[in-house]
Amino acid sequence: ATRVSQDVDIPLPPSPRGLNEVLSLDKDTPDNHVPRDPRLIRLTGVHPFNVEAPLTDLFNDGFLTSSELFYVRNHGPVPQVLDYEIPTWELSIEGLVEHPIVLSFEQILQQFDQITAPVTLVCAGNRRKEQNEVRKSKGFSWGAAGVSTSLFTGPMMADIIRQAKPLRKARYVCMEGADKLPNGHYGTSVKLNWVMDPNRGIMLAHKMNGEPLHPDHGRPLRAVIPGQIGGRSVKWLKKLIVTEFPSDNWYHINDNRVLPTMVTPELASKDPTWWHDERYAIYDLSVNSAAVYPQHNEELRITSPAAKYTARGYAYGGGGRRITRVEVSLDNGKSWRLANIEYPEDKYRNFDGQLYGGRVDIYWRETCFCWCQWSLDISVLDLEASDAILVRAMDEAMNIQPRDMYWSVLGMMNNPWFRITITKNNGVLRFEHPTQLSLISGGWMDRVKKEGGDLTNGYWGRRSSGEAPSEP
Amino acid sequence: ATRVSQDVDIPLPPSPRGLNEVLSLDKDTPDNHVPRDPRLIRLTGVHPFNVEAPLTDLFNDGFLTSSELFYVRNHGPVPQVLDYEIPTWELSIEGLVEHPIVLSFEQILQQFDQITAPVTLVCAGNRRKEQNEVRKSKGFSWGAAGVSTSLFTGPMMADIIRQAKPLRKARYVCMEGADKLPNGHYGTSVKLNWVMDPNRGIMLAHKMNGEPLHPDHGRPLRAVIPGQIGGRSVKWLKKLIVTEFPSDNWYHINDNRVLPTMVTPELASKDPTWWHDERYAIYDLSVNSAAVYPQHNEELRITSPAAKYTARGYAYGGGGRRITRVEVSLDNGKSWRLANIEYPEDKYRNFDGQLYGGRVDIYWRETCFCWCQWSLDISVLDLEASDAILVRAMDEAMNIQPRDMYWSVLGMMNNPWFRITITKNNGVLRFEHPTQLSLISGGWMDRVKKEGGDLTNGYWGRRSSGEAPSEP
Repeated sequence: ATRVSQDVDIPLPPSPRGLNEVLSLDKDTPDNHVPRDPRLIRLTGVHPFNVEAPLTDLFNDGFLTSSELFYVRNHGPVPQVLDYEIPTWELSIEGLVEHPIVLSFEQILQQFDQITAPVTLVCAGNRRKEQNEVRKSKGFSWGAAGVSTSLFTGPMMADIIRQAKPLRKARYVCMEGADKLPNGHYGTSVKLNWVMDPNRGIMLAHKMNGEPLHPDHGRPLRAVIPGQIGGRSVKWLKKLIVTEFPSDNWYHINDNRVLPTMVTPELASKDPTWWHDERYAIYDLSVNSAAVYPQHNEELRITSPAAKYTARGYAYGGGGRRITRVEVSLDNGKSWRLANIEYPEDKYRNFDGQLYGGRVDIYWRETCFCWCQWSLDISVLDLEASDAILVRAMDEAMNIQPRDMYWSVLGMMNNPWFRITITKNNGVLRFEHPTQLSLISGGWMDRVKKEGGDLTNGYWGRRSSGEAPSEP
Repeated sequence: ATRVSQDVDIPLPPSPRGLNEVLSLDKDTPDNHVPRDPRLIRLTGVHPFNVEAPLTDLFNDGFLTSSELFYVRNHGPVPQVLDYEIPTWELSIEGLVEHPIVLSFEQILQQFDQITAPVTLVCAGNRRKEQNEVRKSKGFSWGAAGVSTSLFTGPMMADIIRQAKPLRKARYVCMEGADKLPNGHYGTSVKLNWVMDPNRGIMLAHKMNGEPLHPDHGRPLRAVIPGQIGGRSVKWLKKLIVTEFPSDNWYHINDNRVLPTMVTPELASKDPTWWHDERYAIYDLSVNSAAVYPQHNEELRITSPAAKYTARGYAYGGGGRRITRVEVSLDNGKSWRLANIEYPEDKYRNFDGQLYGGRVDIYWRETCFCWCQWSLDISVLDLEASDAILVRAMDEAMNIQPRDMYWSVLGMMNNPWFRITITKNNGVLRFEHPTQLSLISGGWMDRVKKEGGDLTNGYWGRRSSGEAPSEP
């Protein structure tokens, strides 16, 4: 493995734990060949494997997530690829190209420049549980840990596409994976123009954090589409098909969309035209943030009046747009404080060299493809006087997280202000996150609903029935 | 002049009225050489010339704004450039380049490929009057007509920069105009990477709508930076300076920024470090929209129950991002209806040919640099039952206009939901826009303030004093 000298100031991944064991609950599933970390929380029962790490564990892992804790979104069984099969794994480049080609895994490593870049992937369903609390969407309940960062190594997708010579009318690159699903292989597309644009950093990867891809993350080869929703980064990649129109794959049409908010589940089922309007397909991530500290159910004893508490969390933007500010409110949005932000990704901009067999070469890029970490010291007295901590981020294009949830039928891209409630009891402050992930109950949204509050009243259901309705 | 055959389906500009007359009120100013349209409304007294057209006139002008009605933002006197001086007008390319060069206007036309492209320019102050109603900002009061669209003709800025060969450490392109101002020439910068990126469409222009640039719009040569705030598109362009750092021009530092909302005018004056954080500089436009119909003070008599009213307006995104939906609410944001959208810019994607001496060549571009027009039929009964029409747009990156205003010291990038109130009297519905521009009073924000309402209560000051406060 490539070694980096100790004096280089770039964040390196946590040491791999070396997962070897197949967990007992996986042994009776088609994934009985995949070793996994028991800390990962399953969001869709035992199988297929859709997981996020406990939020605090994810955050404490640092800027780079260890591969074991990286969130997973699998639509079905993980394709089993044995070691000896990898060198001859084939990727075909076809469609509207002058020279269709088939490349072996070995050729992909040998014939193309390899790069290594830090990239944050985010599931379009990150924070979906909040949408499901307001109104059940057609999607399972992610918490706020559907986001992970890794150093990916592989060739630029553009170099491979260029070799096949796209024809003039070509406009999309469709991708297809090896996973066998009820509705065919998983597939989707991105714009050819984006693939060819070096600023967008679209690549293939065969390593994450310097190790060969884990089976859950696409072993032996995947697409990595920085700044866009995870659903575009096709795993177990077998085909790149250059086309005139977006993918007609079932998963491209029926997943990863934000339909207009007035489209109910019933309407969406009845009228398929909603699903074929490419304007509603999601590519770029939207601006988002969450607080990790205070943790859900964390308790803080009020001691000296001078005491400070450091709130901390993450934020990310989409399409390469930098997060330019993170703001915190203790008075339900009337006033805001400015948090500090760290951008560990920037350290890679100053590094020019090899890492894990790929060249780190992003000094010229103006795009940001990784999450950042924010923190803010708050006096405990201020926390005591508040009933909630609100967090919002803004990106370099002045896009800001909105107060209002944009509910949609797939429950994706949920990004209203992140809110943690504060309750006081016997000199102790107790904090609650909006939700717990998956079927786990808890969180202030659950509580508000149980108490008969209206989560859609524009004030997080805060008004009691004795007060005036929020919408006269 | 180039002629386009009648059967080409692209929107062409309104016929120029041929402004020849200097208005009497300009005759005693340094701009006594500039003929202007008397319909333009002056926002900063007689001089300098900062104007927008009446919103309805602008909208009715169509997709392409006639040059006479195009909004103007001048910081000082308009440089007078006589006809015979134009061919020898010089543009110098200097700084971190291998080959500094000076090009004459004639060389710029003759030595570089000329393109023609439709571009919407928007002042960062568009809709600022709404911010000033909430709290006085350091900026004058634009209404919602600080936006205009033109066909610009000229060379790509990248071609010119490439000829000078930027050095490796170069990261910015500073621009400087010929206008003489109290703090030096107007100047600003954009990223070199963006200039070189064909998708961003950054160009120089010497024609708008097929005519030589009007003096107010930079005659004889300007920069056109599509998808970004108008303040980056330097007029009367004299210098391109390639640098390692952003521009240190007074106007780059002290203008076109959205400082964090908690930075008061006092704090901003006291502490100059707020102005030097490049993260707060504005480049990409944010997603925005307005309704034009119903007009301010328009009245609608309720006749048959089947009657419909067609609400109409515009929307634009930033950074080339397409507007993917426009939504209208009649119940203060509880529910939304989907408006129809027209994208006249798309017609240019299918046109491959010469126009006004430049090649239209955007079929390969995936970026949208023009406003779009929305419309929605609403039953008059529904209007009667409502107290306000709210409009919001979302772009392809799922950025949505927020309910909440992000107030900042320069009052820029104002983009909360656009709101038109409805009042009923004797079978007549009357509509009010949020503000009138400049010092003209009128609009529901003014009215709410006069009635003692709180515009920052999260409900547009709607609650009367007898109700519970909106923020308990």
